Amino acid sequence: MARIVMKFGGTSMAGMERIRNVAARIKHVVGQGNEVAVVVSAMAGETDRLVGFAKEASPLYDPAEYDAVVASGEQVTSGLLAMTLKAMGVDARSWLGWQLPIRTVGAHNKARISTIDTTELLKAMSAGQVAVIPGFQGVMDTGRISTLGRGGSDTSAVAVAAAVKADRCDIYTDVNGVYTTDPRIVRRARKLSMVTYEEMLELASVGSKVLQTRSVELAMKEKVRVQVLSSLDDPTQEELPGTLIVSDEEMEAQIAKDSGMERQLITGIAADKNEAKITITRVPDRPGAVASIFGPLAEASINVDMIIQNVGRDKGETDVTFTVPGADLARSLDILEKQKESIGFNRLINDPKVAKVSVVGVGMKSHAGVAATMFKALADRGINVMAVATSEIKVSVLIDEDETELAVRVLHSAYALDAAEGA
Amino acid sequence: MARIVMKFGGTSMAGMERIRNVAARIKHVVGQGNEVAVVVSAMAGETDRLVGFAKEASPLYDPAEYDAVVASGEQVTSGLLAMTLKAMGVDARSWLGWQLPIRTVGAHNKARISTIDTTELLKAMSAGQVAVIPGFQGVMDTGRISTLGRGGSDTSAVAVAAAVKADRCDIYTDVNGVYTTDPRIVRRARKLSMVTYEEMLELASVGSKVLQTRSVELAMKEKVRVQVLSSLDDPTQEELPGTLIVSDEEMEAQIAKDSGMERQLITGIAADKNEAKITITRVPDRPGAVASIFGPLAEASINVDMIIQNVGRDKGETDVTFTVPGADLARSLDILEKQKESIGFNRLINDPKVAKVSVVGVGMKSHAGVAATMFKALADRGINVMAVATSEIKVSVLIDEDETELAVRVLHSAYALDAAEGA
Repeated sequence: MARIVMKFGGTSMAGMERIRNVAARIKHVVGQGNEVAVVVSAMAGETDRLVGFAKEASPLYDPAEYDAVVASGEQVTSGLLAMTLKAMGVDARSWLGWQLPIRTVGAHNKARISTIDTTELLKAMSAGQVAVIPGFQGVMDTGRISTLGRGGSDTSAVAVAAAVKADRCDIYTDVNGVYTTDPRIVRRARKLSMVTYEEMLELASVGSKVLQTRSVELAMKEKVRVQVLSSLDDPTQEELPGTLIVSDEEMEAQIAKDSGMERQLITGIAADKNEAKITITRVPDRPGAVASIFGPLAEASINVDMIIQNVGRDKGETDVTFTVPGADLARSLDILEKQKESIGFNRLINDPKVAKVSVVGVGMKSHAGVAATMFKALADRGINVMAVATSEIKVSVLIDEDETELAVRVLHSAYALDAAEGA
Repeated sequence: MARIVMKFGGTSMAGMERIRNVAARIKHVVGQGNEVAVVVSAMAGETDRLVGFAKEASPLYDPAEYDAVVASGEQVTSGLLAMTLKAMGVDARSWLGWQLPIRTVGAHNKARISTIDTTELLKAMSAGQVAVIPGFQGVMDTGRISTLGRGGSDTSAVAVAAAVKADRCDIYTDVNGVYTTDPRIVRRARKLSMVTYEEMLELASVGSKVLQTRSVELAMKEKVRVQVLSSLDDPTQEELPGTLIVSDEEMEAQIAKDSGMERQLITGIAADKNEAKITITRVPDRPGAVASIFGPLAEASINVDMIIQNVGRDKGETDVTFTVPGADLARSLDILEKQKESIGFNRLINDPKVAKVSVVGVGMKSHAGVAATMFKALADRGINVMAVATSEIKVSVLIDEDETELAVRVLHSAYALDAAEGA
């Protein structure tokens, strides 16, 4: 017996036939003797429809009214799922955000969960009643409905799991787990049975969009074991079918226990084409010059990522290259152009056709030579590295966008991540 | 300056363009210096969509979950209207049923409003903020969302008007008032500027479907002045454009004040084709026989209306004729057939092709001869009266359904209700 939070996204809740499938899955998990809470999204398309109304009402809509409008999508699916479960003979009831309550702080439309009152919830769950909770919503101290921002249902599920001290938070998505890399790029990509929170964050933030980043951060903070799995996976099988996201300690313990499992140096390869490169030429090489470049960008909330400074050009001058999110390129150039005099540069060169490819793995903390392997593998195939950035568990390189898929395949093989043929 | 509750139905709220029209109308009323609360229905079709989901989930759906699902329709429109008003520069906010709260008792799906907490509401309204309240919903003592049953938004509006002691409750519908009879039957039907609650109830219960009966009963109990008007009426004109529904006393006072206004003997003519006639032949004419007929029907919640007993047939036997709602005919016959032995009748004859035509008017309380005029007018045109029923302010006759329109026209003229030509 375990206490499990199950989360279903909009695709799984789109229409009564799918809601019945979800209910059948829950019934099976309940039948195994587990205590279950379920967090649901709105039907696919419904939130867009409601947001459309709000935007039509006013481009500068009132954020509190917006929340009351869009939160209704999850209210509907939670009620429908609860009644479907009851019709199947599974005791269930819906608990809206304001009913539990799920208290939130911060601003409407992007609120953060502060506390979840579990008194009634735990009473119901321990009595064998499935608690169906709409994701994405909560209630402010003002008594008004709040929402967490798009994709917030993953975060709701992790927060509920933390509050009820669940053994696991199972997040059902349209993929059946986290892979060593995008299987559309590398046919022999392997599904990972376990990754750490840190690895998941690096894989997510550089492009493997499976879970909302905020939900992984919350899971890490609250030590919630999260499983990513597909609604098509068979829930009756013994072993967990998806990818388990856990702490470093649990990963270590699992490796120690399972003699057949070897700690991989590299867990996965991520690629992100949403980067753009900016080079500022002939910046005066004096104290404060860099601050005068990055200060105005930071003020505009533009996230500067990789930075390289080419020293040793003409005496007293330097070129500065860095990346920004592709969506912020035009705005960045505009801001820098306005600072031309105060920075005192010569030219602004930009290149939106770049990609960031990263190798990620907690294993590299204790191994040298990861970066060297990476550079050699890329150089052997003639792939030019424009910039490098490293963290404790990640090495990223900036390359020509056209070479993204090639680089991912090369690195996937170089770190021996390919599945055995036929596996 | 007055305190006004405005209520808009689903047709008025169907889509953002119409919601903007509603907001403009509210803005005008606010601009005249009035304190305003608004009660709204869901977008036309939305409640049906949600009910459809619920029925698909389970024919025997959980009523509390059903309420959480279907109440979302009004939640959406109240939020959208509030944000539209704000965008137009009119201060506004939505107050959901559980937020005020609007407390309800009784059963889910057909709850009754017990109390409305007006503390926050009056504070907001007196500060010039429009309170937008979803109709049809409230909250139970259990903290769960309740609904009042279909068409309950009229009742919500009257209850809010009673709670805030509004000067008037304006109910916007797709007709511009209450008419002396159905204008589709009588071209020269006149719009009434004023009717009493009792008259409205009789007109509504016999077929003039403008307001929910419950809402009129509540208005009568709480002495809420209700105006029925069309969303197409011009709100800028001086006089009230619709029909005002008031107490007997206000009607008397108005007549005393306005020398040009004469108390009509008859206020209106209503017709109802949803009746069916049942005749039971050769019932033993002994004490208890009638009870053995109507007892079982009452137990089955079948509303028996007009009753005639033909006495003086064969000695010791009688025929009993009565009407039931057309929808209950089959069930009624089934129940009676099962009681054949205990009642001891000969035959059951039924006729679903009958209609009830009624003349309604508070004025008849103090006038004799209303029924005589009616019978003569009908007899002059050869219309056969099968049964008669009277109340203090109503005389109803049962006639052949095919003669309904003719009877209505004849009576409309007989009581001089026709508008002047060209009026």
